[in-house]
Amino acid sequence: MKLTILGCHSATPRINTNPTSQVLEIKNHMFLIDCGEGTQVELRRNKVKFSRIKHIFISHLHGDHYFGLIGLINTFSLLTRLTELHIYGPKGLKEVVLLQMKLSGGWTQYQLIFHELNSKHSELIYEDDKVQVHTIPLKHRIYTNGFLFKEKENERKLDINMVNEANIDMAYYRKLKQGFDVVNEDGVLISNQKVTKDPVPAKSYAYCSDTVYNEEMLPIIEDATVLYHESTFLEKDEARCEPTKHSTAKQAATIAKKANVDTLILGHYSTRYSDYNLFKNEAKTVFENTVLSKDGKSFEF
Amino acid sequence: MKLTILGCHSATPRINTNPTSQVLEIKNHMFLIDCGEGTQVELRRNKVKFSRIKHIFISHLHGDHYFGLIGLINTFSLLTRLTELHIYGPKGLKEVVLLQMKLSGGWTQYQLIFHELNSKHSELIYEDDKVQVHTIPLKHRIYTNGFLFKEKENERKLDINMVNEANIDMAYYRKLKQGFDVVNEDGVLISNQKVTKDPVPAKSYAYCSDTVYNEEMLPIIEDATVLYHESTFLEKDEARCEPTKHSTAKQAATIAKKANVDTLILGHYSTRYSDYNLFKNEAKTVFENTVLSKDGKSFEF
Repeated sequence: MKLTILGCHSATPRINTNPTSQVLEIKNHMFLIDCGEGTQVELRRNKVKFSRIKHIFISHLHGDHYFGLIGLINTFSLLTRLTELHIYGPKGLKEVVLLQMKLSGGWTQYQLIFHELNSKHSELIYEDDKVQVHTIPLKHRIYTNGFLFKEKENERKLDINMVNEANIDMAYYRKLKQGFDVVNEDGVLISNQKVTKDPVPAKSYAYCSDTVYNEEMLPIIEDATVLYHESTFLEKDEARCEPTKHSTAKQAATIAKKANVDTLILGHYSTRYSDYNLFKNEAKTVFENTVLSKDGKSFEF
Repeated sequence: MKLTILGCHSATPRINTNPTSQVLEIKNHMFLIDCGEGTQVELRRNKVKFSRIKHIFISHLHGDHYFGLIGLINTFSLLTRLTELHIYGPKGLKEVVLLQMKLSGGWTQYQLIFHELNSKHSELIYEDDKVQVHTIPLKHRIYTNGFLFKEKENERKLDINMVNEANIDMAYYRKLKQGFDVVNEDGVLISNQKVTKDPVPAKSYAYCSDTVYNEEMLPIIEDATVLYHESTFLEKDEARCEPTKHSTAKQAATIAKKANVDTLILGHYSTRYSDYNLFKNEAKTVFENTVLSKDGKSFEF
C-alpha cells in the first residue's frame, strides 16, 4: 500500500498549500480520495498516471474536498479517455457534475458512473477479489463519509521445499494457497499446515476527514493499519471544534489509540497555524506512532 | 490601465500553465475577466487584493474559463467578505453556483449579484461615471461574449498659468474641466479653449476569447487601445479552427488590423505548441504591434 498526499490543508487553495486530496495505491488500484481545487495539477506534479484512476471517493460536498472534480472529469475527456470512471460521493454530486457538463455543451466520451451515498450507516460500496471499501459515517456540518480501504485476507504461502517433499502435483497449488488439505501423488492426504506458511497480513487504510470527535467510528476502523484523521485545530482552539465540527490533533490521537491502529496520519490543518510540528507533539502525548501529512509526501506501509 | 494575465492557456491547468483569467485595473476598478481553475492561487501569486474585486466577467461556460469561480466565491466567504460581488456571465451560471452553495450547506454573507447574459447583440452591461462595459458577441461552440472595457471621455486639463492670468475664481474650475466657457472676476466671458488643454485620450480594452474568425465584432472593437484576441492555433493547423470555433494567430492579427487597434495581445494557446514565439511571428506578418500574453505578465497602457 502506498498513500500519496496531494493536499492536506483545510479551507482554500494557496500558493504552497493544497486542499484535501490523496491517492491510495492498493492491490494494483489507484484510488483517488477527495479532490479539492488544483488536484489535477498535483496529480501531474506527483506523476500519477491519469488513466490509472478508475475510482474517486468524495467524502462530502464542501469545496475544499471536491471543487477540483469537475475539472478533472473534463480533463479526462480532453485527453480522450475511454476507460469508465466510478465516482462515490454524497447525493447531489451527480446533479452538480451533470449540470456543468450540460452547460458546457459536451459530455464525456467515457462512461461516468455515479454511486451516490446517503446512508447513515457504514456500507460496503466497492468490492473485488482483493479489496473492499466501506464507508465510515462521520459527524460534520453536512453529510460526510470517511472510507475504509481493506485488503482481503492474502493467500497462504507455499513452503516449496515441503510441497516438493510431499510429492504434491502442481495442479493442487491453488487449493493449498486457499488453505485446503490435498491428496498427493501417492494418494496420501497432506495437511495444509504442513506445507504452507501464514499469509502476509492484510492491510487497511481508514480515511476520516472531516469530523468532530466521534467514537461511533471505532468499531469500523478498529485495528486499521493506518488511520488518517483530520486535525484541524490545536488544543488551545478546542472550543472551535464543536461549532465547526472539526477535531484537535489530540482528539485524533485518542481515536487512534482507542481504535488500536498501527499508525496515525494527521492533516486538514487550519491555515491559522504555521508550525505543524505542534500537531504532532500534541498527538504524541496520547498516541506515539503519529506522523504528519504534507503535500507531495508518500507513505508506504 | 493595467492588465495582468493570470492564465492564458487553453483546455486544462498544468504545473506551469494556467487556464484563462485576467485582471484589468481601470479607473480604480479591478475587473476580473474569466476565472479558470486555480485563479484564486494566481491572484495571490500576483498579489491582487481580493477585496478590490467587485465585478467578475465570465465569457462562456467552458471549464477553462470558469471552473475557478465557485472556489473564489467560497474563499471570499471564508475570508468574511462583506462587499457585494457582481458576476456577469451566460445564463446558467447562477444555477450552477447556487446549486453548489446549497449542497455545501452555506451561503455567502456578502451579496452575490448575478447579471445573466443571453442576448446575441452587444449590450451595455456596466456603467458608472468613468467606465462602460459592453459585451462583444463571439462565435464559439457555445454562447460566448467578449467584453469591451471603455473609459469615458476624460476631463479637460486646466492650464493653470492661463487660468490665473484670466482671473477666474476657483469655483469655476469644475465647469472649465467639463469644457464650458466661464465668466471671470471682472465679468468677462473666458473661452474654454484659451485656458484648458485637451484631455488624456480615453482608453479601451477589448477582450475576445474564445471565438472563430468573426468580422461581425469589428464595429464594436474599432479603434480599441488594446485587443486581446484568442490565437489557439498556428496557421498549419488552421483546419482545426472551424470545427473547434477557434482562431489562428494570423486571423487574430487580421481582426486587429481591420479594427484599427493600437496593440494586439495573443493568448489561449493550445498545449500542442511549445514555442509561443511562432504565434507572434505569424501575427506580425499581418499586424506589427503584436505582443504575447504570458501567465503573470502585466501590461500598462
